[in-house]
Amino acid sequence: MKIICCIRATALSLVSLLTVSQASGQSIGVPVPPLGEGPWVFDTAEQHKVRVSAIARGLSHPWAIAFLPNNNILVTERPGRLRLIQDGVLDPRPISGTPNVRTDGNGGLMDVAIHPDFLENGLVYLTYTKPVENGWGAPALAFGRLIDGALIDVRDLVVTEAYEGNSGLNGRVAFGSDGNVYMSTGGRVGEVAQDPMSLRGKVLRIEDDGSMPADNPFLNRLNYRPEIYTLGHRNTLGLMLHPETGEIWQHENGPNGGDEINILLPGGNYGWPIVSFGRFYSGERVNDNPTREGLESPLLVWLPAIAASGFAVYTGDKFPAWKGNVFVGSLRMGGIPGTGHLQRIVFNERTEEMRRELILTELKQRIREVREGPEGFLYLLTDEESDGALLKIEPVL
Amino acid sequence: MKIICCIRATALSLVSLLTVSQASGQSIGVPVPPLGEGPWVFDTAEQHKVRVSAIARGLSHPWAIAFLPNNNILVTERPGRLRLIQDGVLDPRPISGTPNVRTDGNGGLMDVAIHPDFLENGLVYLTYTKPVENGWGAPALAFGRLIDGALIDVRDLVVTEAYEGNSGLNGRVAFGSDGNVYMSTGGRVGEVAQDPMSLRGKVLRIEDDGSMPADNPFLNRLNYRPEIYTLGHRNTLGLMLHPETGEIWQHENGPNGGDEINILLPGGNYGWPIVSFGRFYSGERVNDNPTREGLESPLLVWLPAIAASGFAVYTGDKFPAWKGNVFVGSLRMGGIPGTGHLQRIVFNERTEEMRRELILTELKQRIREVREGPEGFLYLLTDEESDGALLKIEPVL
Repeated sequence: MKIICCIRATALSLVSLLTVSQASGQSIGVPVPPLGEGPWVFDTAEQHKVRVSAIARGLSHPWAIAFLPNNNILVTERPGRLRLIQDGVLDPRPISGTPNVRTDGNGGLMDVAIHPDFLENGLVYLTYTKPVENGWGAPALAFGRLIDGALIDVRDLVVTEAYEGNSGLNGRVAFGSDGNVYMSTGGRVGEVAQDPMSLRGKVLRIEDDGSMPADNPFLNRLNYRPEIYTLGHRNTLGLMLHPETGEIWQHENGPNGGDEINILLPGGNYGWPIVSFGRFYSGERVNDNPTREGLESPLLVWLPAIAASGFAVYTGDKFPAWKGNVFVGSLRMGGIPGTGHLQRIVFNERTEEMRRELILTELKQRIREVREGPEGFLYLLTDEESDGALLKIEPVL
Repeated sequence: MKIICCIRATALSLVSLLTVSQASGQSIGVPVPPLGEGPWVFDTAEQHKVRVSAIARGLSHPWAIAFLPNNNILVTERPGRLRLIQDGVLDPRPISGTPNVRTDGNGGLMDVAIHPDFLENGLVYLTYTKPVENGWGAPALAFGRLIDGALIDVRDLVVTEAYEGNSGLNGRVAFGSDGNVYMSTGGRVGEVAQDPMSLRGKVLRIEDDGSMPADNPFLNRLNYRPEIYTLGHRNTLGLMLHPETGEIWQHENGPNGGDEINILLPGGNYGWPIVSFGRFYSGERVNDNPTREGLESPLLVWLPAIAASGFAVYTGDKFPAWKGNVFVGSLRMGGIPGTGHLQRIVFNERTEEMRRELILTELKQRIREVREGPEGFLYLLTDEESDGALLKIEPVL
């Protein structure tokens, strides 16, 4: 991993200008001041004033949050650390025993989920990029038991294929209401998302010990990997059990445009790279018709892209006006750095989209993760190299 | 017209809360402070710091801008006034002689364009809602000569059909490189946009005196109005001659989602209400497949909607990084009041979308219009009831 350190060490770097290379040589991106001390108060459309505060700082590319039954919080850091926030304080020592990861600007240690029976078995599930030969990385799922601040008995449940480069290494993991484990695998590698013998570009479904559920949609199908639950996904950065409906909701990043939310149907093909509402980075459309018979159309599409990451349905009582709303983090919007935010989506009782609100645009942070905490507050992670933060959103009463 | 006056008269109203009614009874909208004195400086992605200042205030729903050869500026106000900004100062007296308009929260006096030979003939073209019997309004196009601060010899060139209610009354007008006049008509009335005997939901093309151009696409077609240039439009709030390509560019508002930009082809059918990327306000999709053989697909789509209004291509030298970029105003985004802004779209040399930037989000204004001035600055109008402003954007050097 390339370390970009010390960007706050000089006066000049108080404001860092995000840039990406482009043909014109013109730098892109608004000046993004470092995240201040906070707390911040923002006006929102229906819940009105909310307070945002940082409850942990100094994280390196924090990626995912899981709440433990005792209200302590697990946070992954992409370079390969699993961190514990105990009674609101970040433990300076990472949890030992996590798998070795490969990270090169993408992939690494990613999602974390705890077993529904965690109180009895202590099981923690982690998605990560497993280093393999040639320096390549394979998206993988491991689990282990968290006991006395250490992860033990760690072993892999799924190891997918490795390809050259750092594309499509992402993976989310979530438990279904059926007790099975759902794992997404990045499919931004050629046509693998449509290849039924590849585990990439899929959502996989296994039992909590890695065995095959008897009702998997392709279990006895010739030339299909039995783990496959759905196929045709590009880069899934949101995967969750919808707490009210029991459905598995997924969202994925299109290339230039065409990020989408899907409600997963067993055996469904979500179309990448055959159809997409987006464009390739060159500007060319992926295809003229973004829908096709036999391929599942998205529930919701973003044009332009928001680089969606993180997913939650609000079920608590702290924000009455947000009950049932869907929250999605955004790393950046429309291809412009410095435009990350939290997005709130209101659906009607038929799960049809009514409106979308952009929140926390003023912070200009890349929002990697959003979760509802056990007390009904919302928690976010900012995807920073050296000062990633765990943010908490509370109502202003 | 219902006048909402005096919202600044009390201390309480220093911050006015935009609200719309909805089923839940929860008010929607962020608190929107009135536009301050300015000027404001904003960071933007490629042009970096820009300064925005108000050069005229106190306008009522200003709708459109036209620059005169002497650099004076015409601004329409929806309630029916044509205003003149002379040497940077708003003339307190409206220009006399404008047609009577019908306005009821939508429609009224709208777009203004000057004849390419204005210096010789003084001709000014105005779109407006013509009051007809029953209190209904018909979208219409009038022209007259602007002489000594008065419009004279005013007559109608086009009067379209009136329907009950205040939907689809909007209309833009632009001159083509062929010297013909292009006029858009709102089509948010049943199926009129597809009816070739209706002038609504169309872009019409006439000569500068109202006669029919010999090469109009449906000139000799049975049961087609000869004025029709393109059909299948919902509510067109952007219509312009692309200054570099000579094409007519148009944008229209989808309902809930699906605002779109089109490059108009003679005789083209742009699909409303057969196809759309958007949803009805109830939440239901307009249709499952947003594209269809025989119907033109949009060049660019917004999901969620931005309530696009106003259109410009930047051709000047004052903002080198914006050369060739397309600018679109937004009245509000995603159905949330208080979210209007200016949008900048970068296309590559094949007119394929590369990225989109949201500018001036901090002002929380409804941006109704955007134009490039003769000196290469950008000019905007904010759609306010009693303090609409003409804003000017300049680079900070």
